[in-house]
Amino acid sequence: MKITQKLQQAQEDSSAPATFSFEFFTPKTSQGVQNLYDRMDRMYDLNPLFIDITWNAGGRLGTLTTEMVNVTTTVLGLETCMHLTCTSMKLETINQALDSAFDCGCQNILALRGDAPLDGSEFTGVFHYAKDLIRHIKSRYGDHFCIGVAGYPEGHPEERDVDKNIQYLKQKQDAGGDFIVTQMLYDVDLFIDWCKKCRVAGITIPIIPGIMPISTYDGFIRRAKWCEIHLPDHFLKRLEPIKDDDSMVREEGAKLVAEMCEMLLESGYIKHLHFYTMNLEKSCVMVLRHLGLVSKQQLVGMDTKPWRRSLNPNRSLESVRPIFWQNRKFSYIERTSNWDEFPNGRWGDSRSPAFGSIELSGHQLIRHTREKALSLWGFPTGIKAITDLTVKYLSGDINCLPWSDSKISHEIDPIKSDLLDLNRRGVLTVNCQPSINCCPSSNKVHGWGPGNGYVYQKQYLEFLIPTAKLDSLVQEINAINNEAEYHVLTYYAIDEDGDFDSNAKSASTINAVTWGCFPGKGVAQPTIVEKISFIAWKDEFFSILRKWTSLFKNDDDLKRDQATTFVDSLINEFTLVNIVDNDYVNQPNTRIFNVLKKLFPLKE
Amino acid sequence: MKITQKLQQAQEDSSAPATFSFEFFTPKTSQGVQNLYDRMDRMYDLNPLFIDITWNAGGRLGTLTTEMVNVTTTVLGLETCMHLTCTSMKLETINQALDSAFDCGCQNILALRGDAPLDGSEFTGVFHYAKDLIRHIKSRYGDHFCIGVAGYPEGHPEERDVDKNIQYLKQKQDAGGDFIVTQMLYDVDLFIDWCKKCRVAGITIPIIPGIMPISTYDGFIRRAKWCEIHLPDHFLKRLEPIKDDDSMVREEGAKLVAEMCEMLLESGYIKHLHFYTMNLEKSCVMVLRHLGLVSKQQLVGMDTKPWRRSLNPNRSLESVRPIFWQNRKFSYIERTSNWDEFPNGRWGDSRSPAFGSIELSGHQLIRHTREKALSLWGFPTGIKAITDLTVKYLSGDINCLPWSDSKISHEIDPIKSDLLDLNRRGVLTVNCQPSINCCPSSNKVHGWGPGNGYVYQKQYLEFLIPTAKLDSLVQEINAINNEAEYHVLTYYAIDEDGDFDSNAKSASTINAVTWGCFPGKGVAQPTIVEKISFIAWKDEFFSILRKWTSLFKNDDDLKRDQATTFVDSLINEFTLVNIVDNDYVNQPNTRIFNVLKKLFPLKE
Repeated sequence: MKITQKLQQAQEDSSAPATFSFEFFTPKTSQGVQNLYDRMDRMYDLNPLFIDITWNAGGRLGTLTTEMVNVTTTVLGLETCMHLTCTSMKLETINQALDSAFDCGCQNILALRGDAPLDGSEFTGVFHYAKDLIRHIKSRYGDHFCIGVAGYPEGHPEERDVDKNIQYLKQKQDAGGDFIVTQMLYDVDLFIDWCKKCRVAGITIPIIPGIMPISTYDGFIRRAKWCEIHLPDHFLKRLEPIKDDDSMVREEGAKLVAEMCEMLLESGYIKHLHFYTMNLEKSCVMVLRHLGLVSKQQLVGMDTKPWRRSLNPNRSLESVRPIFWQNRKFSYIERTSNWDEFPNGRWGDSRSPAFGSIELSGHQLIRHTREKALSLWGFPTGIKAITDLTVKYLSGDINCLPWSDSKISHEIDPIKSDLLDLNRRGVLTVNCQPSINCCPSSNKVHGWGPGNGYVYQKQYLEFLIPTAKLDSLVQEINAINNEAEYHVLTYYAIDEDGDFDSNAKSASTINAVTWGCFPGKGVAQPTIVEKISFIAWKDEFFSILRKWTSLFKNDDDLKRDQATTFVDSLINEFTLVNIVDNDYVNQPNTRIFNVLKKLFPLKE
Repeated sequence: MKITQKLQQAQEDSSAPATFSFEFFTPKTSQGVQNLYDRMDRMYDLNPLFIDITWNAGGRLGTLTTEMVNVTTTVLGLETCMHLTCTSMKLETINQALDSAFDCGCQNILALRGDAPLDGSEFTGVFHYAKDLIRHIKSRYGDHFCIGVAGYPEGHPEERDVDKNIQYLKQKQDAGGDFIVTQMLYDVDLFIDWCKKCRVAGITIPIIPGIMPISTYDGFIRRAKWCEIHLPDHFLKRLEPIKDDDSMVREEGAKLVAEMCEMLLESGYIKHLHFYTMNLEKSCVMVLRHLGLVSKQQLVGMDTKPWRRSLNPNRSLESVRPIFWQNRKFSYIERTSNWDEFPNGRWGDSRSPAFGSIELSGHQLIRHTREKALSLWGFPTGIKAITDLTVKYLSGDINCLPWSDSKISHEIDPIKSDLLDLNRRGVLTVNCQPSINCCPSSNKVHGWGPGNGYVYQKQYLEFLIPTAKLDSLVQEINAINNEAEYHVLTYYAIDEDGDFDSNAKSASTINAVTWGCFPGKGVAQPTIVEKISFIAWKDEFFSILRKWTSLFKNDDDLKRDQATTFVDSLINEFTLVNIVDNDYVNQPNTRIFNVLKKLFPLKE
């Protein structure tokens, strides 16, 4: 969606809180990119209106911008604005970047001239000014893109004259600019003066101030100098005395920046704040907390599914996903990226097109370096070590596991103590969701979709057990089902070789495990359990374990050999099982745990 | 489904009660046919395994059998067995009848020779014996049809030798007969002797006894004589003394026939009873009551949707219907009979193909003769007369209205008093359903679909109000929605000219108003409200009113003119409105009534 549309929507209710956005730059290393994705994803939970990704002209880094825009839009489902500069750029490169943004569903471009060559040489490239780039975008894509332009309230280093800069800005608006993002600022008076002048000069598009949170005193001073912006006295007075204590600077800086933001918002010119995050989280969140903007749930951009919808137009009709990749969105999107059609509420013929290979380049089975993986998860040498890891993960002490990319969610709170108990009994749990019966769709933890509806879940648990125990497990499940006189528990079990067992009626049976009923609509059923995708997931799961053992290698330490042997035994001697409890009304969240607790008594 | 499959399914559980079926003959008049459809539909609620329709060789009546098989299978969704005789029949006629049965999804044929010509002349036709017809069916359709054959336990009028008859029966089995339906009987000993002989002779297919309930003493004696069957002494002893009192004969006859059935079932040869209903309901039901078979809900053949699924293979994927035709299944099936694709849980592109014309031949807007219509509904000369009719209908005092073919169901009990109240206030209600929240799918009144699930409904009310009141109605609806801060009430309103108003988001919005969540499955959402089909229904509704006025004509009585004028004013000055209450959880079944009660105060 266009940023201007989102701004308008958000501002329709004059009592709604201000909106904000985050700008990130392209990191220098692959691991840095992975980490930034995780951070973006996490920061998106703060509910920014959009995120920006800066442009890196030339070579690999230029491609990295388009690559990242693709991932944030397609995989992470974040409203993204791509920066694009035109100096020293071939027309072909510009068009490739725009085409790529277009294809992945990105609708926002910040059109920039770019810095002058550092060596003082002449500008090269087909376009000299941002306004030329804007005209090109308009002529090539019509109104598809919402175009942002840069504003310089205190003048540009190459052109200090504020009025001239306003003339240039007006030209950019006239060429097709839809909104303005300004240079960073700390002096509100200068800024508001400039806003007034802009309006007088006929600049009518929204002005979005660039906010730079303060992390260290040195950085604060250095950046202001670099950008040639004015630092108000009270900033210096309050920060200088504490300049050697970074945490105090951050604390006081957050207050100062928040005060500044409040004045900007009170001026009436400003409704939205754009944060230069420098890829950091903390100082930005501190400012938002002071402003009271992070705890308020806003409706704008609310998810329509329990998983975040991809903004890629190819996936626009996707309305169903298998539960197995709940914590692995990167590999799910990658493996299904070539699908012509996505399953939907009817599922039908497009239910399970072939899942792409798990060996695909670009997808990492484990999204961490060897060093990070070892520091996170160590060398598990037995079932207890690995269930202890899961206990840590469930308790929030570590943020990921080899098979779970994202931090444990509060969604599982209703069954957390049972999950911890199971792992302490030696059952390695892999994925789960609690039963939910008629929870308002606006609920902060379990809700999703439009407001004023009700959402539901069937309890789901996926786990590894020794293959030798599978028969007893099936017996216990059958006993519960016989007592209930129907298949209240449905299970699928499969080992690495593909030995498969299930009590589901037929291979094509699809069990909806998450659904929602909304005003004026049909019932949405976005999460399912079924055989074909479970088999694909099994392949991925055991490949993750294999990949994990490969991270132990090149090291002759005994412990590492033991860990390899143990994880190999998980691959060869364990079976991956999932169970759905179909009764979400009576005694939910009990039957599956009872079955497993009976099979795995707690050893004192 | 094949009768033999259904028998096998039903008998898998040895403790399950016996099953039964009903045989009907083709009536002589069109009105008789309409009435019989209603009776079949009603008697199907008793849960017979299937129904039979007899064959009438020659002319219009032969076509009537295939026509009726088509309607019972396609419109009424009843498992049907078509009788087919072969004497005096051209091959072309036989093939036409079989093709027609095949096309409409009928899978059961009772293959009969047919009676000898009454004038004593030779048999004509291409096949002389039932076994020839069976071989023909097998060669032409392979195993598509399940073929029944006739058995004569006490000999055939043309061949009294029981053993010879058993030889013939064995030949019919060998030719491909799948089950036996016998001549009517009252003498259990003779019958069981015959069963034994059949089994000894290698006849292994199921034997189904023909049961003829006793309605009058004369009929009982006459039929037995005609079929040359033996009447046991105790039948005569108990019936002869009361022979002049029909109701006592029926009562005692039901006991006698039920005792006979019990002995048959105890013999072990018999698991299923086939009733020759003579198109009558009462005596048959009395026997079933004595046997304790009518109150037991059987799972076999249970409906998978809240409306009875059509057995026509073209409609096999149909899984969604608009609510508007809830009480008008004949016209709904007819108007959608040419659809290539039916809407399903996803709705999608096939959501609302064009509804066929309401002028189509064969479909009667009002399914009654003028005389019947007048006796049922009289001459409504004002709104009170017509709401009084609706009150009678809602109270069960009359079984149909011009726009409702079927008797009011217990489903509406939760809102019946409110509906009565609305009509007394002058709001003519047309169609409705109460809100249902999480009702077990096995519930006898509200349940549907597989067992152990939960079903849900949003409250729906359709009614006529004076067009002049529409604005106030919309204001009241808006007031409720404003207070709720969302569209808790969604409405559509349209008058005969097509003036349309709604607060639904877009024309393509589809509101699921009935859905069910079942073990191991997706959520089924078989009943919807949406714009396009509502407009089609509006055309039909006002055409029904117009048709009704045409029944008043050819009569110069003042009252009749007044009724015509009044119904014309309903057409010209009223608007058809439907409202859905989207909140099925909090204070269900209140908001819609409150809106209308406010607008239509009760006059004392």
